[in-house]
Amino acid sequence: MAGNTFGSLFQLTTFGESHGAAIGGIIDGCPAGLEIDSDFVRSELQRRKPGQSHITTQRKEEDEVKFMSGIFEGKTTGHPIGFIIENTNQKSNDYEHIKGAYRPSHADFTYQEKYGIRDHRGGGRSSARETACRIVGGAVAKLYLKHLNISVQAYVSQVGHIKLEKKYQDLDLSKTEESIIRCPDAATAYKMVSYIEDIRKEGNTIGGIVSCVIKGTPAGLGEPVFDKLHADLGKAMLSINAVKGFEYGEGFNSIHFKGSELNDVFVSSGEVENNRKITTTTNHSGGIQGGISNGQDIYFNVAFKPVATIMQDQQSVDKDGNETTIKGKGRHDPCVLPRAVPIVESMAALVLADAVLRNKVAKI
Amino acid sequence: MAGNTFGSLFQLTTFGESHGAAIGGIIDGCPAGLEIDSDFVRSELQRRKPGQSHITTQRKEEDEVKFMSGIFEGKTTGHPIGFIIENTNQKSNDYEHIKGAYRPSHADFTYQEKYGIRDHRGGGRSSARETACRIVGGAVAKLYLKHLNISVQAYVSQVGHIKLEKKYQDLDLSKTEESIIRCPDAATAYKMVSYIEDIRKEGNTIGGIVSCVIKGTPAGLGEPVFDKLHADLGKAMLSINAVKGFEYGEGFNSIHFKGSELNDVFVSSGEVENNRKITTTTNHSGGIQGGISNGQDIYFNVAFKPVATIMQDQQSVDKDGNETTIKGKGRHDPCVLPRAVPIVESMAALVLADAVLRNKVAKI
Amino acid sequence: MAGNTFGSLFQLTTFGESHGAAIGGIIDGCPAGLEIDSDFVRSELQRRKPGQSHITTQRKEEDEVKFMSGIFEGKTTGHPIGFIIENTNQKSNDYEHIKGAYRPSHADFTYQEKYGIRDHRGGGRSSARETACRIVGGAVAKLYLKHLNISVQAYVSQVGHIKLEKKYQDLDLSKTEESIIRCPDAATAYKMVSYIEDIRKEGNTIGGIVSCVIKGTPAGLGEPVFDKLHADLGKAMLSINAVKGFEYGEGFNSIHFKGSELNDVFVSSGEVENNRKITTTTNHSGGIQGGISNGQDIYFNVAFKPVATIMQDQQSVDKDGNETTIKGKGRHDPCVLPRAVPIVESMAALVLADAVLRNKVAKI
Amino acid sequence: MAGNTFGSLFQLTTFGESHGAAIGGIIDGCPAGLEIDSDFVRSELQRRKPGQSHITTQRKEEDEVKFMSGIFEGKTTGHPIGFIIENTNQKSNDYEHIKGAYRPSHADFTYQEKYGIRDHRGGGRSSARETACRIVGGAVAKLYLKHLNISVQAYVSQVGHIKLEKKYQDLDLSKTEESIIRCPDAATAYKMVSYIEDIRKEGNTIGGIVSCVIKGTPAGLGEPVFDKLHADLGKAMLSINAVKGFEYGEGFNSIHFKGSELNDVFVSSGEVENNRKITTTTNHSGGIQGGISNGQDIYFNVAFKPVATIMQDQQSVDKDGNETTIKGKGRHDPCVLPRAVPIVESMAALVLADAVLRNKVAKI
Repeated sequence: MAGNTFGSLFQLTTFGESHGAAIGGIIDGCPAGLEIDSDFVRSELQRRKPGQSHITTQRKEEDEVKFMSGIFEGKTTGHPIGFIIENTNQKSNDYEHIKGAYRPSHADFTYQEKYGIRDHRGGGRSSARETACRIVGGAVAKLYLKHLNISVQAYVSQVGHIKLEKKYQDLDLSKTEESIIRCPDAATAYKMVSYIEDIRKEGNTIGGIVSCVIKGTPAGLGEPVFDKLHADLGKAMLSINAVKGFEYGEGFNSIHFKGSELNDVFVSSGEVENNRKITTTTNHSGGIQGGISNGQDIYFNVAFKPVATIMQDQQSVDKDGNETTIKGKGRHDPCVLPRAVPIVESMAALVLADAVLRNKVAKI
Repeated sequence: MAGNTFGSLFQLTTFGESHGAAIGGIIDGCPAGLEIDSDFVRSELQRRKPGQSHITTQRKEEDEVKFMSGIFEGKTTGHPIGFIIENTNQKSNDYEHIKGAYRPSHADFTYQEKYGIRDHRGGGRSSARETACRIVGGAVAKLYLKHLNISVQAYVSQVGHIKLEKKYQDLDLSKTEESIIRCPDAATAYKMVSYIEDIRKEGNTIGGIVSCVIKGTPAGLGEPVFDKLHADLGKAMLSINAVKGFEYGEGFNSIHFKGSELNDVFVSSGEVENNRKITTTTNHSGGIQGGISNGQDIYFNVAFKPVATIMQDQQSVDKDGNETTIKGKGRHDPCVLPRAVPIVESMAALVLADAVLRNKVAKI
Repeated sequence: MAGNTFGSLFQLTTFGESHGAAIGGIIDGCPAGLEIDSDFVRSELQRRKPGQSHITTQRKEEDEVKFMSGIFEGKTTGHPIGFIIENTNQKSNDYEHIKGAYRPSHADFTYQEKYGIRDHRGGGRSSARETACRIVGGAVAKLYLKHLNISVQAYVSQVGHIKLEKKYQDLDLSKTEESIIRCPDAATAYKMVSYIEDIRKEGNTIGGIVSCVIKGTPAGLGEPVFDKLHADLGKAMLSINAVKGFEYGEGFNSIHFKGSELNDVFVSSGEVENNRKITTTTNHSGGIQGGISNGQDIYFNVAFKPVATIMQDQQSVDKDGNETTIKGKGRHDPCVLPRAVPIVESMAALVLADAVLRNKVAKI
Repeated sequence: MAGNTFGSLFQLTTFGESHGAAIGGIIDGCPAGLEIDSDFVRSELQRRKPGQSHITTQRKEEDEVKFMSGIFEGKTTGHPIGFIIENTNQKSNDYEHIKGAYRPSHADFTYQEKYGIRDHRGGGRSSARETACRIVGGAVAKLYLKHLNISVQAYVSQVGHIKLEKKYQDLDLSKTEESIIRCPDAATAYKMVSYIEDIRKEGNTIGGIVSCVIKGTPAGLGEPVFDKLHADLGKAMLSINAVKGFEYGEGFNSIHFKGSELNDVFVSSGEVENNRKITTTTNHSGGIQGGISNGQDIYFNVAFKPVATIMQDQQSVDKDGNETTIKGKGRHDPCVLPRAVPIVESMAALVLADAVLRNKVAKI
């Protein structure tokens, strides 16, 4: 209820601040008998890890996950999977200068107002470090989905004004990891990286868009009214730090179509794939109709604002309303998008795994 | 778990298809002692009602709500508020022609796949009639918020290519109800209505954007990680039929700003209002920082696609994959936006009322 | 969260006071495709109905259930099943005499304290009339269980000091409905009825025990830690008005055995029934081990106190602490046990149906 | 949903098996600003710890809890409190002999049936070691209750046939910790200990009753229908390993009273304590009426069976139905009751803390 649990049947509950002993979580409801490939979980964490390239923060965090329970002889037992990631590179003194001050567009002020107490070190619970736990939960969810031949792939499609003009269908998503910005189109990736380098030099930050594609879902995932599949995906994405918008299928662009232009016409596919013969000629719907997957690709966009921590001095006030200056120092990301890619995938995987389980009880 | 309940402490659970005896719901968790102004609930339902103007469906539905419980001598008792709205204008035969067919971009196909059974009359549970229950729940939530001086106001800000260029700060939102399209700017409203008339004449449909502003929230609403206030708002909006996108604060536009430009600088307001003296000079954040309200206005946009039901013949297939034609007939909306305005407000009110209750247990 | 919802996947949410327009509820999560035998639901309601014999209250209530949604052509659609039962025999004036007074051992005082407001007519939400909705939910759950060959049978095993000495294995449970007290042993039933007649004559009330047996469950139902199958059964029973205790298997009697005496020894059954060949020689465990069903019969006892409403004058106080006398009048049950039998079954059926659904996601 | 979370607002989610790296959990929803006395938490764990006296198992476990998050400068921050307890004394080889066998009345068989996989070492998730996490959660809940002047005290009131005949009102509960059996009456405690010594010598086990008293609760805790306060207490107790029954107030004994004898008469107390002047002359109700606390003492009994692990050889079968013998060896408790006392208190404290928070949203 305090909002640290995600999912209804496949559940992730997380804890931890960047300057405590460890962060961690509990994955509950993962079905028994699933093989856990620890190397895969580790590689997913590497994708989120700070310091992975010169356009991310140079902070060093080991992000070594330790599974505590729920796995026996390499397989899930149906019991909760507890895990921790120790905090090994805490420099609490780095935050002494902001102890009494409210950083602009951070959670400092709202936390103080809500709780009457605040762990100022590294932003406490509002630290993006919390997302490492989402990666662990998401990696386990991905393993479950993989076993069902469902894939989740995200990539950076826009940084500031630099936009990848191609649609996902025209991209080779296997190339996403080839660039440090995680854009599968080499030419655009190059421009994005150059732009971020400029942004970094001026001590500033920039946002953009992460796009995501989910392939291989059966028809039937999602619940029809309040828990529509895209509503759960939207909530998942909006719960990620710095996200300001979500759209799926044609999204905001839908308003430029008439109904006759946007409707996806059903046709018989002729083939017998997964016992389904019915498909659509277009996929403006983004793979979801009436809140339920229809078997086509699911795709959506997530808008990230530039992160609030910049390397420039900023005016602000302290708890008592006195004016103060926030110094621009520390180790931070000029652009979080490359590191956000695996987080978007993880949250999408958690939603999908949950939807698969929920769908198991739809019929007698 | 089947997704017919919304909210965690202030909960709305709904039931009903357009062609059963009634639709209805249960509002559970509404605090005791709240005065229920039935006239207000009724007037809210009128705003959603079909047939309210010539640019909405001409279907007639009475939408008379009957409260069954939970209210005693005009006040809530703390017990569940059961209500029903009878279905008085069902013409099931209207749907015989689509009994075996899958309407493009409707939920017919996905329902059949998920449940193996489908009430084809009026779309069954996927009917937008379901939203009448959201209005009832939302009206009660609004009464609770009103008692706390929190207001929720939505309006139509775009229809197709016709866009209201003014920001909400420059609008007189008390004028929203003066136009049948529910756009508070008379000149733009006129253009929108004319455009919808054209769309209707060609038997087509068009989408657009509903914007919403929430004023008067205290700082502290929302939970910091998975249940961020805007994540819950986003889910609420995305759960409404035909919604394809959600953005709050600067939203997708954030990607065109650098961090130094988008950050909201804290200042001391000088005044002592609700014991808070700290405010921000700008509100790019949209009233929410770190997932928690900061006391500024909350504002967001919701993108609606053109509804799928058009008055033109469309190709499709039946359950067995045989080709068929969906006739364009019946009584439907060329543009759902004016009727969506109270639904957006209702869902926002449900989120806020829930957030207020959840915030009551944040501190000892 | 306000406690009007029962179950996690197979959910019943109820509303209603005895003196509103109607009581009712929503069954959500019932899988699609289940045939609903309305006659069966009606017959279950008859078993709970007041006035069914001379040893129950002579109040007349029709208890006619109207299903509003979720059923199409006789089968569940996977959507919420809304239902109402109109209140046709409200005599609110009957309660004028207790308007300001707190009836001993009723919920009058605690409701006033908790909510600051109270619908005094018929006890408001604390009225046992609320259990009619449990019967409807339970009847649908029973239909689901029947389809899986799981049966739930309760009976009265003790009234005051009159105890049915036989174990359930030595009883013919098909005879339960033959006596108005719902005790399957004719001789004991006769004594019980006579005793209740005496109790009624003195304007008093008496309690007793309802026993319940669940047959046909597969192994695997229940969750291992906090949601052990018997913990959910216990909660279900304790949520029924007037219940003071719950025990399963050997229950409180277990304390008179040593471990070597109480352990159930596993043996190979030789037969291949449902792919299981392993059974136990005894069933002290009551069909549940480690919180999970083992395929043996589940059995438990539920203790009911004598109901608080008696036909004798009682001393009490009003809201302001002034002394007052509660008159013993109205139409009430000298012993609720016969009418409690179907309620116990209903709550057990809801627990089991939920456990069956939850177990569907235990393995990949 | 997999049943590893307890509570709705004050939530404990646990993980861990006795032979993994650690057990642990997350306390979510504990209000911000509560001082955490770590010594108290530690002392509570000591009360549950194996090897604390010669009548408990001689297994050595350090049970050192490490808090990972959610506490800053000694106070709760409103964020999740993660904790782990390392497993330092795992002797997995001790369990090689039962790897393929089903121990009588253990969870071995039901786990295998439910999950298709089983961590046989120490019973895996069914190990009573899991209760250490309940102690940690319960200790934090107790600190919260203490701050509200609510106390929770349990004690052993029966071991086998040896029964403490006094009621809780006639006992000095501050003496509970003076005997190793945790019975506050010295003479009875002596008999209990002697009896357990005999039981241990024959390699057997014995059960009994733990009684619990909660003092200082305000009126108003508990929800009126499905989440009655005693229903939640009952579920909490029944979720503890080896518990077979629960009763509150007069419990099963209620059936020997008539309504006129059992009703608790309201009187005006004369005094003004917590703004309440109304009390009852008797407390047969056990401090709860209509599912809601009335301000009187809450008391209840919990029946424990003798634990299944005995030091005698037992016949059983293996997974394939072949006969096998379970050797009676290892380090186990002849009677779990003394160690169960803090577990009963912990679970009761979790229920009460949750009820206090839920009650905060009952009124506007």
